Amino acid sequence: MLTLHIGNKNYSSWSMRPWVLMTQAGIPFEEVLLRFDSFDPASQFKRQATALSPSATVPVLVDDGLVVWDTLAIAEYLAERFPDKALWPRDVATRALARSVCAQMHSGFGALRQHFPMNIEAHLPAVGARVLREQPAVLEDLERLQSLWEALLARHGGPLLFDGFSIADAFFAPVVMRLKTYAVPVSARVQAYMAAVLALPGVARWVADALAEHDFRPFEEPYRQGPDPA
Amino acid sequence: MLTLHIGNKNYSSWSMRPWVLMTQAGIPFEEVLLRFDSFDPASQFKRQATALSPSATVPVLVDDGLVVWDTLAIAEYLAERFPDKALWPRDVATRALARSVCAQMHSGFGALRQHFPMNIEAHLPAVGARVLREQPAVLEDLERLQSLWEALLARHGGPLLFDGFSIADAFFAPVVMRLKTYAVPVSARVQAYMAAVLALPGVARWVADALAEHDFRPFEEPYRQGPDPA
Ligand SMILES: N[C@@H](CCC(=O)N[C@@H](CS)C(=O)NCC(=O)O)C(=O)O
Ligand SMILES: N[C@@H](CCC(=O)N[C@@H](CS)C(=O)NCC(=O)O)C(=O)O
Repeated sequence: MLTLHIGNKNYSSWSMRPWVLMTQAGIPFEEVLLRFDSFDPASQFKRQATALSPSATVPVLVDDGLVVWDTLAIAEYLAERFPDKALWPRDVATRALARSVCAQMHSGFGALRQHFPMNIEAHLPAVGARVLREQPAVLEDLERLQSLWEALLARHGGPLLFDGFSIADAFFAPVVMRLKTYAVPVSARVQAYMAAVLALPGVARWVADALAEHDFRPFEEPYRQGPDPA
Repeated sequence: MLTLHIGNKNYSSWSMRPWVLMTQAGIPFEEVLLRFDSFDPASQFKRQATALSPSATVPVLVDDGLVVWDTLAIAEYLAERFPDKALWPRDVATRALARSVCAQMHSGFGALRQHFPMNIEAHLPAVGARVLREQPAVLEDLERLQSLWEALLARHGGPLLFDGFSIADAFFAPVVMRLKTYAVPVSARVQAYMAAVLALPGVARWVADALAEHDFRPFEEPYRQGPDPA
């Protein structure tokens, strides 16, 4: 039995990846929410996360006592455990390409991450425009990201990055959420990719859960003063 | 034929990982040095790296025209391409654990990385002591790192993290170099692990090459004013 421990759905970009991956691929699992109270060592979240894995972060996948942490390791574990799901592209060269973009995402795009934290229920176009004016590093990240997506979509024809849903789309799903929240201007091809990701049932379910959460966490909110009026 | 494009051996912590992995595992390859002049878009390094891969970073592995970038994707590619080398542990659960620690390293330990940049030929104990006094986030990273290593070494008995050399040791090799340069105080068990990593022929060869480089790059040197006297 698989259990996935996650954080708040509105905020936890890392948790979104394996949740969307498993949901979209039809891999059954139980989910356990570790609600973000704060990331202080004394917080309930941090004490629960510390008890779960050495990284003391979410997501964590537990498979019959085997603890797997960190999104990319979880993705690789699932790809091995469910070979029939073809979570990575089946062709060796295409798989190497998919792994390259996921590993790049995993440790890169730091400025984008920092200045555009995931916040699914928020709509912050003015913040987006200001960040794009003031933070050249965010612009650089966005240019690199968009040309990466464009190249993959052009190579293959879309609507997703590879032939059928893959780990790569799950990895970029939180980025799609950020581009949406901060209303980042993108090309028509990237717009179509974003629409395709948002239309995936696994993504739509996560988004619906996030919108139902109504759990405003000030330490995850550099831009809003309080919850938006319902 | 495999070609690995790397940066300066004294500084390029990311390049060290696949180079050590392939050398130590006895996988033949050609190496191409993209010398760090700077990371400006107009630099020779950046122009060469941009021509090689979408990330415009090193390392990049080219296998008969197939371009694989980002260390973790390179490691996974090699593990698949050379199954007899057992670059990951052969047991499913142990492999999941090894992947968890490598993926955690790949996107984590940011404070350690930022304040203790790899610089193999430098010996900076005073800088190390000052950073440990002034940067609590570095201390936290070091504590998390050491307890991770201790747990793996205790589980398995050492001298390396898993049974025989694996991708995990290649991933932590640059971290061992940092602990050495900045003379970070560590437990006896961690000292023994560091000694075991430094004694790997693949690591020793990289270090020897780094020491022979004598290519002081000011933008990689937050702490030294010029090369150490020979
Ligand atoms: N590289 C990790 C990052 C996980 C991560 O940072 N998760 C956040 C929540 S989205 C967390 O648990 N933060 C707690 C903390 O930083 O103390 C992964 O891929 O799983
Ligand atoms: N996540 C990448 C990081 C590679 C990386 O940042 N490499 C550095 C050299 S050690 C680089 O090429 N930097 C150039 C730049 O940042 O523009 C990997 O695992 O390969």
